[in-house]
Amino acid sequence: MILVVALNPALDITHHVDGIEWAGVNRPFAVHASPGGKGLNVARILRTLGADVRLAGLAGGHAGDVLVAELSAADVPAVFTRIAGETRRTFAVVDTRREETAIFNEPGPVVSGAEYAAFLDCYAEALTTSSIVVLSGSLPRGLPSGTYADLITTATLAGVPTLLDTSGDALMVGVAAGPAIVKPNAAELLAAVGRRRLLPAAHEHAQVEDVADAAAELRERGADNVVVTRGPDGMLAVTAEGTWLVGSVPVSGNPVGAGDAVAAGLAHGLMRGYPWPDLLSHAAALGAAAVAAPVAGQIALSDYERALAAVVVKSWQES
Amino acid sequence: MILVVALNPALDITHHVDGIEWAGVNRPFAVHASPGGKGLNVARILRTLGADVRLAGLAGGHAGDVLVAELSAADVPAVFTRIAGETRRTFAVVDTRREETAIFNEPGPVVSGAEYAAFLDCYAEALTTSSIVVLSGSLPRGLPSGTYADLITTATLAGVPTLLDTSGDALMVGVAAGPAIVKPNAAELLAAVGRRRLLPAAHEHAQVEDVADAAAELRERGADNVVVTRGPDGMLAVTAEGTWLVGSVPVSGNPVGAGDAVAAGLAHGLMRGYPWPDLLSHAAALGAAAVAAPVAGQIALSDYERALAAVVVKSWQES
Repeated sequence: MILVVALNPALDITHHVDGIEWAGVNRPFAVHASPGGKGLNVARILRTLGADVRLAGLAGGHAGDVLVAELSAADVPAVFTRIAGETRRTFAVVDTRREETAIFNEPGPVVSGAEYAAFLDCYAEALTTSSIVVLSGSLPRGLPSGTYADLITTATLAGVPTLLDTSGDALMVGVAAGPAIVKPNAAELLAAVGRRRLLPAAHEHAQVEDVADAAAELRERGADNVVVTRGPDGMLAVTAEGTWLVGSVPVSGNPVGAGDAVAAGLAHGLMRGYPWPDLLSHAAALGAAAVAAPVAGQIALSDYERALAAVVVKSWQES
Repeated sequence: MILVVALNPALDITHHVDGIEWAGVNRPFAVHASPGGKGLNVARILRTLGADVRLAGLAGGHAGDVLVAELSAADVPAVFTRIAGETRRTFAVVDTRREETAIFNEPGPVVSGAEYAAFLDCYAEALTTSSIVVLSGSLPRGLPSGTYADLITTATLAGVPTLLDTSGDALMVGVAAGPAIVKPNAAELLAAVGRRRLLPAAHEHAQVEDVADAAAELRERGADNVVVTRGPDGMLAVTAEGTWLVGSVPVSGNPVGAGDAVAAGLAHGLMRGYPWPDLLSHAAALGAAAVAAPVAGQIALSDYERALAAVVVKSWQES
């Protein structure tokens, strides 16, 4: 079983409006609400792949009730520890005329030490039947930046490898606990290792050498392997067995959730024991299929098959 | 008991942002969610006045669950008929830097004939212990414009007077069923009787003669009494016992929900048998207190007392 941890999930609400009136009353012509957040996207992609997956996370209030109910309806097995705070909502307002989207991210609940302790019991129990753990997304307020490091150490002691996909301090402190794979994007990676000045305005075009150096630094700090997503420039993997460049798969669409599909693919391939080139092709093709899909966390397997045939992985060495 | 009907309630969510980025990600510094819609505001004002009030309405989905739970927590007795559709949300995004508010009103559920029939049973049962009925707000999709007329006729047959506060066709068809009081604002009144051309850009400054003529027309069409709110210009009441002008009470604040406070005051005073001048003072002072209050549906009784001392009601005759 793949255990996916979602400590700060969200209820994503999207309104589509044809020409927004920013100082008046709007009547959206389409309204959607669905469970969101990185962990939930990862779990849904894994479910689409037919993997045995379980979500473990924190949920509270009515937005938390919606999450739990919707995931149950979508047949995604989940165990949420209840918290007193209200699960955050994100509100996206899509202006279909101006082709602009405004996103409003609520700050989310503050999690208490007692609530985290209750989650830990649940997590430890789930570890006994897990082959791999995915730790994905931001930490809610109230939890220290060492939380993922703590969960990685607990998993390691139980003999379960971990994949970490987060940013900032949670990433850097987490890396030191020795996750099997860390999966930042190039911007998150360069920012976390303090090389923001190397980051061009369009972060996807960071120099591959800079990305490789920063990824190598994460390995030195404790990560077994580092896979960096580089948007339309593909991916770079710095691993214990060598470094690989993954070419981009030309695809147009919505990049939101593509990194989550890559994380899902890495966890899935790792569990199946894929060698690195196959693991990277699998993950990159899932990322491309996610870009092609209209909704984050949902992919068409036909898009995945098409991308898998197109993706190129080659060994790379800094010149 | 005062029975307040809320056929199309809402869950009102408000985000406060200091300078909104309309093509990017925003992090609201304050987030509020509370039951909303005109009927709920009326019921809360009546509760503040210590009146014996009961809400009857339609609620569905998770937003409906939130409504029911929050009203219960606020000690507002309510009987909601469950519907299959999801109760609508409204999103208000307040830009505290630009002092602008964008409102996004979801279209709301479609109500079936069977669901309305189930509500009618509930309504008929509640009428047996009611002294007055307040019918307030828009009709949900699926219900015909004669719905309020139907509810007025049912109440009249049970010997219970009604107050109608709605707009458009629901107002005009409802008036023909003979409600005790109709309470439109000047814009709703002039639009409903087809005199939109008489309405200046700032609707509060419609000529009092035009408002009086339109109100008299509603009486001819079936309403016993018509009370028109005119924003900062006060109110005009055209009744079976004469016409009164209610002077404005100078107060600054948020006019959202002021009309609901006036409706609550009219229902409350009618139940207590107040003569017209007292009834109008009571209602106008509640409206002023609602403007002074930061949140719709909530008033401070001290603001009410102050406004009551300041309000002037005088008999008026068209010259």
